[in-house]
Amino acid sequence: MPQGLNGAQAMLRTLVDAGVNVCFTNPGTSEMHFVAALDTVPEMRAVLALFEGVATGAADGYARMAGKPAATLLHLGCGLGNGLANLHNARKGRVPMVNIVGDHATYHVQYDAQLQSDIETVARNVSSWVRTSQSTAELCSDVVEAVATATGAPGQIATLILPADVSWGEGGVPQPPRLPAPAPVASDEVVAAIAQALQGPGKKALLLGGRALREPGLLAAARIAAQTGAKLFAEVFPTRIERGAGLPHVERIAYLAEMASVQLAGIDHLILVDAKAPVSFFAYPGKKSYLVPDSCQVHTLAAFTQDAQGGLDKLCRQLGAEQAQPALQPAVRPDRPRGKLTSEKVCKAIGHLLPERAIIVDEAQTSGVMLPLFTAGAPRHDVLTLTGGAIGQGLPAAVGAAIACPDRPVLALVGDGSAMYTIQALWTMAREQLNVTSIVFNNRSYAILNVELQRVGAAETAAGSKAKSQLDLSNPSLDFVQMGNSMGVHSVRATTVDEFVAALQRALASPGPHLIEVVVPSAIAGLKLRLLPYVLQSLAHLPQPLAKLLKKKIAP
Amino acid sequence: MPQGLNGAQAMLRTLVDAGVNVCFTNPGTSEMHFVAALDTVPEMRAVLALFEGVATGAADGYARMAGKPAATLLHLGCGLGNGLANLHNARKGRVPMVNIVGDHATYHVQYDAQLQSDIETVARNVSSWVRTSQSTAELCSDVVEAVATATGAPGQIATLILPADVSWGEGGVPQPPRLPAPAPVASDEVVAAIAQALQGPGKKALLLGGRALREPGLLAAARIAAQTGAKLFAEVFPTRIERGAGLPHVERIAYLAEMASVQLAGIDHLILVDAKAPVSFFAYPGKKSYLVPDSCQVHTLAAFTQDAQGGLDKLCRQLGAEQAQPALQPAVRPDRPRGKLTSEKVCKAIGHLLPERAIIVDEAQTSGVMLPLFTAGAPRHDVLTLTGGAIGQGLPAAVGAAIACPDRPVLALVGDGSAMYTIQALWTMAREQLNVTSIVFNNRSYAILNVELQRVGAAETAAGSKAKSQLDLSNPSLDFVQMGNSMGVHSVRATTVDEFVAALQRALASPGPHLIEVVVPSAIAGLKLRLLPYVLQSLAHLPQPLAKLLKKKIAP
Repeated sequence: MPQGLNGAQAMLRTLVDAGVNVCFTNPGTSEMHFVAALDTVPEMRAVLALFEGVATGAADGYARMAGKPAATLLHLGCGLGNGLANLHNARKGRVPMVNIVGDHATYHVQYDAQLQSDIETVARNVSSWVRTSQSTAELCSDVVEAVATATGAPGQIATLILPADVSWGEGGVPQPPRLPAPAPVASDEVVAAIAQALQGPGKKALLLGGRALREPGLLAAARIAAQTGAKLFAEVFPTRIERGAGLPHVERIAYLAEMASVQLAGIDHLILVDAKAPVSFFAYPGKKSYLVPDSCQVHTLAAFTQDAQGGLDKLCRQLGAEQAQPALQPAVRPDRPRGKLTSEKVCKAIGHLLPERAIIVDEAQTSGVMLPLFTAGAPRHDVLTLTGGAIGQGLPAAVGAAIACPDRPVLALVGDGSAMYTIQALWTMAREQLNVTSIVFNNRSYAILNVELQRVGAAETAAGSKAKSQLDLSNPSLDFVQMGNSMGVHSVRATTVDEFVAALQRALASPGPHLIEVVVPSAIAGLKLRLLPYVLQSLAHLPQPLAKLLKKKIAP
Repeated sequence: MPQGLNGAQAMLRTLVDAGVNVCFTNPGTSEMHFVAALDTVPEMRAVLALFEGVATGAADGYARMAGKPAATLLHLGCGLGNGLANLHNARKGRVPMVNIVGDHATYHVQYDAQLQSDIETVARNVSSWVRTSQSTAELCSDVVEAVATATGAPGQIATLILPADVSWGEGGVPQPPRLPAPAPVASDEVVAAIAQALQGPGKKALLLGGRALREPGLLAAARIAAQTGAKLFAEVFPTRIERGAGLPHVERIAYLAEMASVQLAGIDHLILVDAKAPVSFFAYPGKKSYLVPDSCQVHTLAAFTQDAQGGLDKLCRQLGAEQAQPALQPAVRPDRPRGKLTSEKVCKAIGHLLPERAIIVDEAQTSGVMLPLFTAGAPRHDVLTLTGGAIGQGLPAAVGAAIACPDRPVLALVGDGSAMYTIQALWTMAREQLNVTSIVFNNRSYAILNVELQRVGAAETAAGSKAKSQLDLSNPSLDFVQMGNSMGVHSVRATTVDEFVAALQRALASPGPHLIEVVVPSAIAGLKLRLLPYVLQSLAHLPQPLAKLLKKKIAP
């Protein structure tokens, strides 16, 4: 056992021994011993962020792709607060993460100094496990428990509050890692009942979420579908979905409750696999929140605490579907787009050019509705989405994904409004020379809120110029080329389809970070059809032949 | 009483009737009825921010200058989280504020939709008063209570959580405002005892904070000082201090505990006036946290809940000091600086040029240590500081101050590291065409953390290249000129003293927002004297003749 370590040094050793060897940081004074200890543990990579929301969003994106947690290093309650929105996204996505939140020395707390606040209350909003470490001797046991909690099923957020004197104290003793308890598989009775439902009369569907959306889960689900005729759905905002040519295609539940209800209409049996029964993202006056039809029976093959893959495999065996031929997505790309630049054509160009093994981080909101359709038959790729609905996740998650998978190209699609919450992520992309191409859809509005203003019925009463101004980002317009360049990211603007295609080709061909600002009409203002976003949204989720037909009709 | 109002409309009317007529917003879907209602209440000004930390920091700066609260409009727990750091600063500064945090409809909560989280836990970290409004009928009573709580003594943060259906429901009834309970004045006995201590033997000092740092409080304190020989101190990070030629000069307690201990050495009686006894900002191994000498007796003339001005006036009368002549700061400006550009010379140039009635928001950290010295005899001005130590407050607070005082020039001094937490504030400055000149000290490092790394003793053990890299912002360097221009703020770079002076003159002469990036050597790297920052810090707080003498010695 190493001798003479302080708390921070022993902690870093313990983290690395448990496989946590990336830490996304935004330290302050109370974290200085952690910082000083970094050089004593060469295996730990510390990635600096200029804002805590970048650090937590990057840890989220990292864990989704690496399949194991990163640590974050945050500065007291305020640093945790700044990171909270992306911790929320990680929590809702069941993504493992270990937060180290520095705090005042234990004896300093009584003085209520300027940065003193109740960190634990804030931590509880996002963390399944919160502990303020009480002594240097116990610190590493706390770390081991934090990592084991985070990496269980479901993935969870563990927040360890580290008082400065616990960090700088002598007598730290690194501890060996502990494996999380294995997740249980659905019982024989449950599997038999679900098999019976799938083999019986009526319309059936599997709703896949979480870890069921990786290749092994998709293949097992597709075999079950082939054997039983069940439909396959994915949850509305997957943590990580593997898709593209050669993998089973799964239709995502639509964001708009109106469309999700259409998707779910007539389903008699809905089998949940690491997913929850669909509910409306928001409530709307006079509309239902729970989207499953009253007559539908809901079955749970895998709750969040269970082994989703084990459940799917067991169900496969029960059905004798091990040899069933899963329907696989054929390789097909859209043509190179032509004509005026729109967000739809940007998505089409991405489908046209998407490289092998790309990682797409999709926070494009209204601008990305056509993306699933245009990339369905592209080479295999992963898509990470906004699991918790807290915008400002896209650029940071791209940072983390690129660090987890340095040999894979990352595309971050973000709306202008979304991009501005955590724009500081661009600096970390430049500092670490990450292979991320950020595509910013600049429609100069919170376009989705224009849709929502209609949907909640608010616009019908009194929406005037002040209300509209709250959704407008055109005064002044944001210049993302200067923005990106100011943080060291090579940035260009595309105002035509040709410019965009050329810029994307260049970005994908040159290592390091790139930003492409695409100036597109607002989904609303440009199309001048109040309902069109609904229709476009639904297209992305409808069976392809029907979607293609509709698309030709409405958006030639 | 108006008829047929929904909750949001009645709420806005109630806020305006209570004097809350500015709202800093970053709305989402659950706030759409509030947004739609804005046009029905023309007196309410809604100022959009691209990030919630800008909204809360602006509400802080606004209240400090307007002397009354602004409202914020935030989107569920994640929006509140993004705003938390600047709410913390406001809380520590006893600044009144009313947060309206939109939530899901009451009946939607059970479904745990994507954005669902426990908002109240987060709100408690910063709020004295938290309530989730339960019905449209009760909403306006809740609003009245929130405003009354916020505006009491001390100023507090009241957070009202507004479910979407309470907002959109019909039957809202505006309620008349309620005055907060008047703050009590110190009792006769307490005042008599303090007067006796001040008239007795030994060294005495008044420590002024909060509302005692405005002109009436300063004058009363200076009369007491003139009568009794007591020294005047201001708390280390004043919420708002009025200063400059014609006002009493008050020495601020130093940030560095080592220097604060020197300031407080030998004091026998310390009288607290809306301030707390000084403690170290952070704990340091082997150093004391509580900075008041053991032999010093601490008296409280005004606790945070009491009337500070009333206490000072009463003490004045008790001492017969009403006619004492307060020592007033003479009008004196530093000469125009010459030679190589340093952060010290930037501060000197600001002292040389500071216009009448300027508002300085000081978040310059190491770069601003000379500012108090160089502006002491400048025309009267206000200084707002980082009350809670959560960086990222400067630019947002400048937004709020400029909206509260549209006829006064605002100077925001921010370090490069600090600026990046809430850089989105620049966009709101451009959108609202605010008279703010942002001066960004680009020393390409978290310079203060280099100091702190030494102070906590961490550097002596193991600080290597990884540790140093965590404090380094030079790879890549941030370009604040492109950054400012990207958000519509006229931005220039100064690399020489002449360029800076010319840029500041131009900025002060032209309305609307400006940004000046000053490229300065790191306080540490440039001066190559490990202890110099300590000395510089102390200079800003020492009596001027001594400070001048020392300054000539060490930084000619």
